[in-house]
Amino acid sequence: MRKKTKIDAFCRITEAICLPKSEFPRIVIIGGGFAGLALVENLKKEDLQIVLIDRNNFHQFQPLYYQVATSALEPDSIVFPFRKQLRGYKNVIFRLAEVQEVQSSDNTVYTDNGFLTYDFLVLATGSETNFFGMERIAEHGLGLKDIRDSLDIRHKMLQNLEQAAITCNDEERDALTNFVVVGGGPAGVETAGALAEFRNYILPKDYPEYPAFLMNIYLVEASGRVLSSMSKNASAMTLKYLKNLNVEVLLNETVVDYDGNVVLTKGGEKYFAKTLIWTAGVKGQFPDGIGKKNVVKGNRIKTNAFLKVEGYENVFAIGDVATVISETSPEGHPQVAQPAIQQGVHLSAIIRNLLHGKPIKPFKYKDKGSLATIGKRKAVADLGRFKFGGYFAWMIWSFVHLISIIGFRNKLLVGINWLISYFSFDKGSRIIIRPFKKERLNTKNKI
Amino acid sequence: MRKKTKIDAFCRITEAICLPKSEFPRIVIIGGGFAGLALVENLKKEDLQIVLIDRNNFHQFQPLYYQVATSALEPDSIVFPFRKQLRGYKNVIFRLAEVQEVQSSDNTVYTDNGFLTYDFLVLATGSETNFFGMERIAEHGLGLKDIRDSLDIRHKMLQNLEQAAITCNDEERDALTNFVVVGGGPAGVETAGALAEFRNYILPKDYPEYPAFLMNIYLVEASGRVLSSMSKNASAMTLKYLKNLNVEVLLNETVVDYDGNVVLTKGGEKYFAKTLIWTAGVKGQFPDGIGKKNVVKGNRIKTNAFLKVEGYENVFAIGDVATVISETSPEGHPQVAQPAIQQGVHLSAIIRNLLHGKPIKPFKYKDKGSLATIGKRKAVADLGRFKFGGYFAWMIWSFVHLISIIGFRNKLLVGINWLISYFSFDKGSRIIIRPFKKERLNTKNKI
Repeated sequence: MRKKTKIDAFCRITEAICLPKSEFPRIVIIGGGFAGLALVENLKKEDLQIVLIDRNNFHQFQPLYYQVATSALEPDSIVFPFRKQLRGYKNVIFRLAEVQEVQSSDNTVYTDNGFLTYDFLVLATGSETNFFGMERIAEHGLGLKDIRDSLDIRHKMLQNLEQAAITCNDEERDALTNFVVVGGGPAGVETAGALAEFRNYILPKDYPEYPAFLMNIYLVEASGRVLSSMSKNASAMTLKYLKNLNVEVLLNETVVDYDGNVVLTKGGEKYFAKTLIWTAGVKGQFPDGIGKKNVVKGNRIKTNAFLKVEGYENVFAIGDVATVISETSPEGHPQVAQPAIQQGVHLSAIIRNLLHGKPIKPFKYKDKGSLATIGKRKAVADLGRFKFGGYFAWMIWSFVHLISIIGFRNKLLVGINWLISYFSFDKGSRIIIRPFKKERLNTKNKI
Repeated sequence: MRKKTKIDAFCRITEAICLPKSEFPRIVIIGGGFAGLALVENLKKEDLQIVLIDRNNFHQFQPLYYQVATSALEPDSIVFPFRKQLRGYKNVIFRLAEVQEVQSSDNTVYTDNGFLTYDFLVLATGSETNFFGMERIAEHGLGLKDIRDSLDIRHKMLQNLEQAAITCNDEERDALTNFVVVGGGPAGVETAGALAEFRNYILPKDYPEYPAFLMNIYLVEASGRVLSSMSKNASAMTLKYLKNLNVEVLLNETVVDYDGNVVLTKGGEKYFAKTLIWTAGVKGQFPDGIGKKNVVKGNRIKTNAFLKVEGYENVFAIGDVATVISETSPEGHPQVAQPAIQQGVHLSAIIRNLLHGKPIKPFKYKDKGSLATIGKRKAVADLGRFKFGGYFAWMIWSFVHLISIIGFRNKLLVGINWLISYFSFDKGSRIIIRPFKKERLNTKNKI
């Protein structure tokens, strides 16, 4: 029996989550996405004990989920371990836990793995897929709001293509090779484009058993145009690019039901498809204990222009979960990376000034523009006055995304994979590692 | 409702697994490991319909499992999709299925996904972890015979280190940071060495919460020396290298019980450890329907010198699952890559000659030597008369493994990761993607 090692007892007895002793005020940041991590990075030198809590041990680069989902990248290229990022930051502590409840009356956060107290609390808990209460779609469809979602999509897609090679049943093969993407925002457009490229370039080589035209890719958008948050110019070009890739775009159409085999639209159309990818909405996610009066449209938490949740003295919210109300943003900001990063940076200034007794400034969002890519070598860009598309926009898209990924190794891996893919039209990671529950078409319910 | 696509009906009606029509005899190869893939590669131009069946859609490079387990490599670097490898081989068909039973009386193979018939059948089904009937160890310990095992070990290790940072309980922290590796063969030695490097170089930076010396790595070997299949010289050097890395090597010792918290040895010693990695044995794995009289020691299938299973006209076995009996090998060959590859190549010659009515030759194993690495920059080599260790042996080890990995992209990814790791002493892939069931130390059962 080896001797027990005694550690300097740095545990507060009253706390289940072990933390070093500190004379500084403690700020607890829940969630290490774009907002949370920007806050940590910009606060790290302050006289604070900064505790970052996340249910994953890694930061995720959400804009490239779709590339993992379509076998272009491995997950480790677009996620980055927090502990590696936070190395050497003496005031910063990472804890792997999922926060369940906030009890603001005694400044305590309860997790699945113990509790801890705070002096300041920041909710940077992000958003999750919103199926708008359609339970059957939630059960059978696949979201795209986590690296695990990306892997689920990849595995299901590859599994279905294998199953299509095995079955002798034409209808089943049809359903296995059809893909319905719901939502014509950037995530949906980029996913549909990448699926189309997979179909056009990989399928004929890897699956000579059946013709590539067997695989149909549908993109369903409720409004009258794709990328409706961007310019009309961008929408029109995107639609053209998608059609060139042979994506069937259904505008002014919504999906109302899905049983895992048949997609039913509001217009009464039915589509055989074993795979439905849902990118048609997100909603804020946060632990219990936040007053209902603070929760606004999209399940987001309303904050004032100083990023503070109303009715609380020391609770802030930033990123997708927050609806920051100010004069210039009566409805909050879009749930994408840029506002999240800017809010994280701004909150660090607010807290720094609060600590030093200086005046604080309201948050102002600076829109740097929008980019979206549609398959390889095509993208659209709205950058201020400049609205354009094509190869040059795609170069900008690639450059912006590559420099935004954390870490030299990740940049290198993504860069190499993109280079190989650029010249070979190949994608590297077509592997099914997790067991995926196989579904068989229930022949009795065929339409 | 979209129109149904009709495919050229290439299904044999009697078969549930869809296969193209062919005038050639059909050879069904179960398992695409080193043996099965070597056979496919060397038969691909023959007038045969070659059907490769595997329960994974990828070939696995088993010698580097331990690097995935210890966060040095991502799984996609050491596995390779079959369909990419088999592209353009017109006679070769891949089917993703797990074979459950062979019915040799009517030359049929039954899988979890339909059945198919064969003219020749090759069992290349490999081996799995052998816990020798110790169910509690099988339940709580982790094997290392599949890429999923590697990921399980990685996730459990990282999860446990995170949990150790969270707990205030000294005994629990002890158990969470201790690792017991059972089996002093190449897999055990390489795993223990890599864990020690993780402890020595990564832990102090990533987990400043607790001192690195808290983490203990034990390597338990039943015989009197590690790497007992290699020279005594190699064993002695390996022992020295392991001690330099602060691995506690327990020779002449076996593990007899493990409840997930306490490792009990035959000598009556007890070790707190939440992680036990079992590399102390393998056994052949194959579908039902093979006559019991053909099964020999280690659950392997006995073949004659022509790789044919006795009592069958058209059933062969190669690789780990086969014990090839010949004059020079009364007990078969070691269950490693080299005999498997050589048997695959040799069987292709046998089948080619059978098809062409030429005489066939018995299999002769050519031992090319053994290599094993212990941490970074140290390895041992037994290459014929030359038995040596150290940096040069490590260079050879690295070179041999790098050129053996299938695919340019994989070589590149492994090469880059190794280069980064070489110069930075860092490992890239410390991410926990799959949920891992958390275990809490049952305080009532503490010793």
